[in-house]
Amino acid sequence: MTVFTTLPARHDHTPTFTDRLSAPRGESVTLRMHTTLPVTGVGFMVVRSGELEAHAASAVPGRPGWFEYTLTLEQDVTRYAWQLALPDDHVNLTMSGLHRTRRAFRDWFQYLAGYRAPEWAWGSVFYQIFPDRFRNGDETSDVQDGEYEYAGASVFRVPWNTVPDRRGDIHGHYGGDLQGITEKLPYLTELGVNALWLTPIFVSPSNHRYDISDYRQIDPHLGGQAAYDDLLGACRDAGVRVVLDGVFNHVGNENAIFRAALADPAAPQRAMFTWREVNDASRLLPYHTFMDVPTLPKLDYASEATRQEFLAGELSVVRHWLRRDARGLSMDGWRLDVAHMIGSGGTDDQNLELHRELKRAAREERGDAYVFGERFFDAERAMQGDGEDGAMNYHGFGLPLMQWLSGQTHFFMPSRLTGAELAEQLWDAYHALPPQVALNMFNLLDSHDTPRALFQLGGDRVKLRAALTLLMGYPGVPCIYYGTEIGLSQEVAAAMPFCRAPMPWTDHGGDPAAWDMDLRSDVQRLIALRRATPALQRGSMRVLAAQDDTFGYVRELDGVSVAVLASRGAAEPVTVTLPAGEWRDALSGEPVGSGVQEIVLNAGRILISGD
Amino acid sequence: MTVFTTLPARHDHTPTFTDRLSAPRGESVTLRMHTTLPVTGVGFMVVRSGELEAHAASAVPGRPGWFEYTLTLEQDVTRYAWQLALPDDHVNLTMSGLHRTRRAFRDWFQYLAGYRAPEWAWGSVFYQIFPDRFRNGDETSDVQDGEYEYAGASVFRVPWNTVPDRRGDIHGHYGGDLQGITEKLPYLTELGVNALWLTPIFVSPSNHRYDISDYRQIDPHLGGQAAYDDLLGACRDAGVRVVLDGVFNHVGNENAIFRAALADPAAPQRAMFTWREVNDASRLLPYHTFMDVPTLPKLDYASEATRQEFLAGELSVVRHWLRRDARGLSMDGWRLDVAHMIGSGGTDDQNLELHRELKRAAREERGDAYVFGERFFDAERAMQGDGEDGAMNYHGFGLPLMQWLSGQTHFFMPSRLTGAELAEQLWDAYHALPPQVALNMFNLLDSHDTPRALFQLGGDRVKLRAALTLLMGYPGVPCIYYGTEIGLSQEVAAAMPFCRAPMPWTDHGGDPAAWDMDLRSDVQRLIALRRATPALQRGSMRVLAAQDDTFGYVRELDGVSVAVLASRGAAEPVTVTLPAGEWRDALSGEPVGSGVQEIVLNAGRILISGD
Repeated sequence: MTVFTTLPARHDHTPTFTDRLSAPRGESVTLRMHTTLPVTGVGFMVVRSGELEAHAASAVPGRPGWFEYTLTLEQDVTRYAWQLALPDDHVNLTMSGLHRTRRAFRDWFQYLAGYRAPEWAWGSVFYQIFPDRFRNGDETSDVQDGEYEYAGASVFRVPWNTVPDRRGDIHGHYGGDLQGITEKLPYLTELGVNALWLTPIFVSPSNHRYDISDYRQIDPHLGGQAAYDDLLGACRDAGVRVVLDGVFNHVGNENAIFRAALADPAAPQRAMFTWREVNDASRLLPYHTFMDVPTLPKLDYASEATRQEFLAGELSVVRHWLRRDARGLSMDGWRLDVAHMIGSGGTDDQNLELHRELKRAAREERGDAYVFGERFFDAERAMQGDGEDGAMNYHGFGLPLMQWLSGQTHFFMPSRLTGAELAEQLWDAYHALPPQVALNMFNLLDSHDTPRALFQLGGDRVKLRAALTLLMGYPGVPCIYYGTEIGLSQEVAAAMPFCRAPMPWTDHGGDPAAWDMDLRSDVQRLIALRRATPALQRGSMRVLAAQDDTFGYVRELDGVSVAVLASRGAAEPVTVTLPAGEWRDALSGEPVGSGVQEIVLNAGRILISGD
Repeated sequence: MTVFTTLPARHDHTPTFTDRLSAPRGESVTLRMHTTLPVTGVGFMVVRSGELEAHAASAVPGRPGWFEYTLTLEQDVTRYAWQLALPDDHVNLTMSGLHRTRRAFRDWFQYLAGYRAPEWAWGSVFYQIFPDRFRNGDETSDVQDGEYEYAGASVFRVPWNTVPDRRGDIHGHYGGDLQGITEKLPYLTELGVNALWLTPIFVSPSNHRYDISDYRQIDPHLGGQAAYDDLLGACRDAGVRVVLDGVFNHVGNENAIFRAALADPAAPQRAMFTWREVNDASRLLPYHTFMDVPTLPKLDYASEATRQEFLAGELSVVRHWLRRDARGLSMDGWRLDVAHMIGSGGTDDQNLELHRELKRAAREERGDAYVFGERFFDAERAMQGDGEDGAMNYHGFGLPLMQWLSGQTHFFMPSRLTGAELAEQLWDAYHALPPQVALNMFNLLDSHDTPRALFQLGGDRVKLRAALTLLMGYPGVPCIYYGTEIGLSQEVAAAMPFCRAPMPWTDHGGDPAAWDMDLRSDVQRLIALRRATPALQRGSMRVLAAQDDTFGYVRELDGVSVAVLASRGAAEPVTVTLPAGEWRDALSGEPVGSGVQEIVLNAGRILISGD
């Protein structure tokens, strides 16, 4: 059941209903519920040590329809619900709405005690950079034609401003580097982003660098440690955070650890990978890998040595890059590559325990480190705050949203997904998460692993604006893939490598016509609105509209309501029933009125009330 | 989303769609899907080591609309779904139905590898006996007035055929015993039940015996070991299985282990309980208990000694009563009291791990032991086969069903729950379970912990028949609380102790008018049908009807369909659209026809087709 703004009872994580979003175990938190139903009494149900306890909630004096209960936090995760007694009836309020039955615990409200969310991320707008393709700041460090061999072929240079092709998928280097990012920081801050996610920057033979040879060295082709130090300094000065990409499921086959393990079955490094007996007929590699790719041997976390080296050890990779330098600077968090795969024995066994261990180490180094996993599919199971803070929100946001707008999946499979089905999917994913985790989810429309958003949308820039509008308003941390703001697209219907075109800087030979400056202005305004609007950063969420061609939701915080709406249909007005309040367009300031309105939505609209 | 029989794509656990319900890891199982949609291709999606793999399913030659995929079982739990490509669209088939989105993994199909279900339970109809109240077979062993003191009061005898009152809640003993059960086994087998769940029978001071003093002795007031041995022998001869009640969350305060722990802080038994510092002001007990009841100290499973004594040790309680005697006999399983509470440190911490440990020990003694937990609330989290086989299905069956039929909860809170809401709740709970576990769930209308079904239904015997009909057809193992079959009820609107009246045997002074022989005949017929109908024991389930006053579902197995329907409304015909097939009343044999039918349902009807 999708929960709409029209539900006549409310409780959420915002201060109106929850006096503190994060309190330690042992302390108390007052929770409030408001209803317009003619209740004869209200109960507060809580699961404590497996048992359901029912308590009477108190009417809040002088505030009709308001009830509260003060909960002492005895568990890391507390599940609770409200029970509303009515004349001749009763209903239970959970995240799944009002039901006459007692719903499954997975639908109940959750309170995480003692969990410290990286709240800076809620106020951030991220920008994803694939370093080889963003900006070449120092040509002297570029990979040279034939500089080295890798996986049976030579690396080569690819001229900037040419489109990626299959041949260059792994071996073709454009020459982008960290100096280039530093150089273009003013561009980024002008756009309004205040955080970067860089795909891997450690020494690696491929252009994508997910095959890491040395986890403790910045790739010299990206400028090495000096360029990294410069970038951190410039980012500090610009108020920009940096998240690096941690590849902890597998290493590159040129990594010294793997080479030692491969060379000698008696080597201590042997236990850090999973080996199997093979013969000529089996055609299997003697070691487990990522997706059967021979160059990506999978780490085995059954080995204490693996856990120490990468996650927990005093000098682990996780700690190394979070440790502050002499200036007090470090990067700010980890994006964890294929987080769902990490495990022992060639599988994902112990996945959740390992992520807890990783997170503990990260937080010991930086109490505000933002750690989120690439979990391309449903991440719910891992999202209790004790492991990753959040996950890349493909499942609960980006993929279904793009499917609805484009009429096809990211594999270009046709789909007639409706706005109502979209709302159901987004709500289903949202309602299952603890509130802080929902606010930590890393929302995106596209990435280096999917088709470019504009391409999937068939070049429809109106729909792209709709997608960007819904992205900037949605609970979680928004991220823009480099170039999306200017309409960067691709030419071939597949993801990699075509979605990784170089940024067409006009001061580097790029075509000025490749820059959609109107789009960029709109993105700039959306980012500015997101950053200026606490309700979008930490507000509650309910669905406002869900028809075939229309979808919208409301974010609320401290009396401010923000409605975020879009249509995939023609540019005709859509009828929307706005919640109580006097509404105006959040970008133009134009008054919109209240109640039932006819609104043109198709590029997306953000309305605001109560501020 | 509730899944109805009208869904145009099907897959379930029955042999039509799943060639083996239980196969070990490493082996393969062929899974099939049938659809009437105009598919252009079918994919099989499976989660392996955290990653989603998409495979092409094969069209089954000569069988239009049928597709299959052979899955190699590499994990204890495999989640999978079907993807149906359609002209200009596609849909995904999961347990939650057909969706254009990729649903959360919790909605996907589940295959448990290497799990061995206690399949005998699927063919069983249970009868719950509260031994002090079923039959007094030997008056010489009765508790005598003032025989001992317990919790500050003397025990006393209560004359048979008097109703329970508050004073006798704990201390009033009626004198029922194991000899009485043996004596009345012919009554039970005539009724048709073939399995008994006995509430606790070990040495305990109270009449309910959930405060056990000695876990290895049958209470002498119930006839002791000799009476138990006789009962097992008689049950073997009668083909009746026996499940005992295991109280592993807490012991009675007269238990020697607890007395030793209480007497001496240095005693080794001290670690088996959870202690706390108290002072006069705190008004707390110095030890953790079940629900603040001083006589029920809670066991602490952080202690290895506790785990050894009760669960895992060679001579543990779990093992002791499952070990076969010289005749090769033992009881057949454990019902686990407050299974959701068991844990360490005075909480439910480690609950799932402890249940896995308990289950391993039980299965080592008896490979077919049926172990199910009292989990009064949502049990989903614990239901993966590695812990309990199933749970008492209050949440997913009995409570919502009785709420719908009676218009009130078991706490007598009014409710206008509709048949559609009932269907949603039942489906929601069913669809979340692996299929074997769903078939293991212990279904009941009432118990010694709830009001008597007939009382909650306001004495309406038509509704009671409806409830019994829905019980006997539902996926899971049905259980009748002693006396329900003759219309035993109660007089006070509360559960304990009023729901525990003695069985009014007419050869023991009972009023013949207390015996509703028509009801008993109906129950007998329903039980016989259940036991004779494999589709009810192991078939699939979908919802057939869900209106305000009507609810029904279909069970299917090997081409046989059984429709189970009931109405809570007046005795007027209800319009039901039956699935394809020629239907007849399963009890009377009367033909019903096919398609849309007007049927009188209100006492419940079971229709059958295809047998």
